[in-house]
Amino acid sequence: MSNLKSIKELQVSLNLALDKIPFQAEPAELYEPISYILTLGGKRLRPALVLMAADMYGFDIAKAMPQALGIELFHNFTLMHDDIMDRAPLRRGKITVHEKWNTNIGILSGDALFVKAYQYIVKAESKHLPVLMDLFNQTALEVCEGQQFDMNFETQEVVSMNSYLEMIKFKTAVLLACALKSGALIAGASLADQNNLYKFGIHIGLAFQLMDDILDVYGDQKDFGKQIAGDILSNKKTCLYIKAYECASEQQRKTLDYYFAHQNFNAEEKIEKVMNLYAALNVKAACKEMMDEHYHLALNYLNAIRVEEARKQTLLQFTDLLMVREN
Amino acid sequence: MSNLKSIKELQVSLNLALDKIPFQAEPAELYEPISYILTLGGKRLRPALVLMAADMYGFDIAKAMPQALGIELFHNFTLMHDDIMDRAPLRRGKITVHEKWNTNIGILSGDALFVKAYQYIVKAESKHLPVLMDLFNQTALEVCEGQQFDMNFETQEVVSMNSYLEMIKFKTAVLLACALKSGALIAGASLADQNNLYKFGIHIGLAFQLMDDILDVYGDQKDFGKQIAGDILSNKKTCLYIKAYECASEQQRKTLDYYFAHQNFNAEEKIEKVMNLYAALNVKAACKEMMDEHYHLALNYLNAIRVEEARKQTLLQFTDLLMVREN
Repeated sequence: MSNLKSIKELQVSLNLALDKIPFQAEPAELYEPISYILTLGGKRLRPALVLMAADMYGFDIAKAMPQALGIELFHNFTLMHDDIMDRAPLRRGKITVHEKWNTNIGILSGDALFVKAYQYIVKAESKHLPVLMDLFNQTALEVCEGQQFDMNFETQEVVSMNSYLEMIKFKTAVLLACALKSGALIAGASLADQNNLYKFGIHIGLAFQLMDDILDVYGDQKDFGKQIAGDILSNKKTCLYIKAYECASEQQRKTLDYYFAHQNFNAEEKIEKVMNLYAALNVKAACKEMMDEHYHLALNYLNAIRVEEARKQTLLQFTDLLMVREN
Repeated sequence: MSNLKSIKELQVSLNLALDKIPFQAEPAELYEPISYILTLGGKRLRPALVLMAADMYGFDIAKAMPQALGIELFHNFTLMHDDIMDRAPLRRGKITVHEKWNTNIGILSGDALFVKAYQYIVKAESKHLPVLMDLFNQTALEVCEGQQFDMNFETQEVVSMNSYLEMIKFKTAVLLACALKSGALIAGASLADQNNLYKFGIHIGLAFQLMDDILDVYGDQKDFGKQIAGDILSNKKTCLYIKAYECASEQQRKTLDYYFAHQNFNAEEKIEKVMNLYAALNVKAACKEMMDEHYHLALNYLNAIRVEEARKQTLLQFTDLLMVREN
C-alpha cells in the first residue's frame, strides 16, 4: 500500500484539480462568479477529507478526486447562497458574489454551481452511485435545514442547547461526515468503517463549531483573526449564550435579554457586561466540556476503524489542525 | 401491450403522486413553501411527457413515476427562483413564495426543492443512472443558462434571432426534451428513438414559445387569459420584436427604440404604434413561418420513431393540446 499523502499534498492536488475544472464561457454572468468564488481560496478541508478517507484504504486519490471536487463545489454553492441570505459583504476578505455582481446573479450562479457539484459526484463508479447519491442528497437537504434553523434562531426568543447542537450538526458537521463516508465508500471500505468515519465527522464537526463559539469570545484576537466577541456584538445565539441562558437566574436573564435585544450599545461595555455574566455562570468551562466530549467521541469512532493505526495518521493530523486553536 | 393512457389519466395519476410526496415537517419555513408551490396547480405537462414516452414503449408508468416527479419538482424549483429574479408578485394567480414568505426563504426552499428533485431522479434503476444523471445535469445547467440569457436580453440593446432561439431552447425546450428522453430511456427504447424524442421535444418547445410570443399580441384576449400585448408594454424582446428590428429601416428602428426604451407611454398608443410597425414589416407571418417550421420538424422526429403509429397517439394529442391556440 502506498504511503499516506499529507494534508498539504492533498490540498495542493485539490487546488490544481479545481483550477482545471472547465467552465463554459457563456453566459459570462453565470460562470464568472463560479470561477471567482473558487479562487477566493479556503483550506479545501472538506474535499481533503474525501481524499484522506480514500487514501486510508490505499485507494488511488486521483480516482477519488471527482467526488472530492463535488463536495468542494457544493460547499461553495452553499457559501454563495448563504452570503446572500446573511447579507454578507465579504467572504475570505474579498467582496461577495452578490455584492460584486447582484443578488439575481448570486442566486442563479449558485444554482449552476450546485449542478456542477452533481456533475462531479456522479462521476463515481456506477455500482456506488445509488448509495452515494442518497448520502449526498440527504446531506444537501440537511445543510439547507441547518441554514434555515440558523436563520430561525435569529428571531426565536429561546433556543435550547439540543436545538442548537442539531443546527450546527446540520449546518456544519454533516458535510464533513458525508465527505469522509463518500471517500471510504468509493474506496470499498466496510459499512462499519464507513459509519464510524461518518460519526467521526459528525463529532469532530460539532467539537469544531463549539470551539469556534468559545474562541470568538475567549480566543487570542491575533491568532483568531476576527473581531473579538463579534458574536456578542451581533447578538448571535452561540453555545455560550445558550448555556448562560439555561443557567441564569431571572435577573441574569433580564440582563442577557437587555444586551441581546439591541445592537446600539457601547461595544466595550456590552462585551464586558456579557462576559462578566458568562464568567459568573461559568459557561466557558461548561461549553469546553461539551466540546471535549464531542472531540473524544470523534477519536473513539476513529479508533474503532479497522485499518492499521499508521493509516489513520493523516486524519489524526487533520484533527489536530482543526482543534489546534484550543488551549 | 396495455392501452395507452390519456393525457388526462396521466395528469390525475401525477397529481395523486405529487400529493403523496412526504415532506419533513421541520423546519416549517423550508418545507411549507415547497408544499405551497406544488398545490398551485399547473398542467403537469413536463412530468406527463416522461410518462407518455415510457407508456409509448409499454413500460409500466408507475415505474416511471419517480422520474416524472423529479422533473416536476425541478420545474417548480426553477419557478421559485425565477419568480425571485423576475420580482414576480403572482404565480398562477396566487401570491409567489418570496412574497408570501420572503426572499431568503424563496432561495433556500428552492434549493431544498432542487435536492428533492434529485432524490426522485436517482430512484431509477441503477443501470440507467449514469446516463440519466448526465442528461438531467446537462439540462439543469442549460435551464440556468437560458434564464441568465433571458435576464441579459433585458439590458442588451440588440438581440439576434439566433440568440433568442438559443435562449428559449435552453429556458423552455430542453426540459421538455429531457422529460421525453428520460421516459424513453428508462423504458428501454433504442438510442435512436431516445434522440428522436429529444429532438421532438426541442422543436415542439420552440414552436410553443414562438406561438406564445405571437399570441401575446395577436391572440384572442379572452382565450389567452393574459393582458393583450403585455410583452410590448413591458418592452420584452420577443421573436416579433426581434424580427421587426431585423427588417426595420433606420427610421423604423428609431421608432422601435423610442417605444421600447420606456414604459411611461399611453398603453393604447404604444401598442397601436408598435403593432402598426409589426404590420408594415409583416413580422407576424414571418414568426408564424418559423413556428410552423419547428412544428413540422417536431412532427418529423415523432414520425421517425420506430413504434406502431397507434402508440404515438397520446404524444400527437399532446402536440395538438400545446399548439391548439394557433389559428
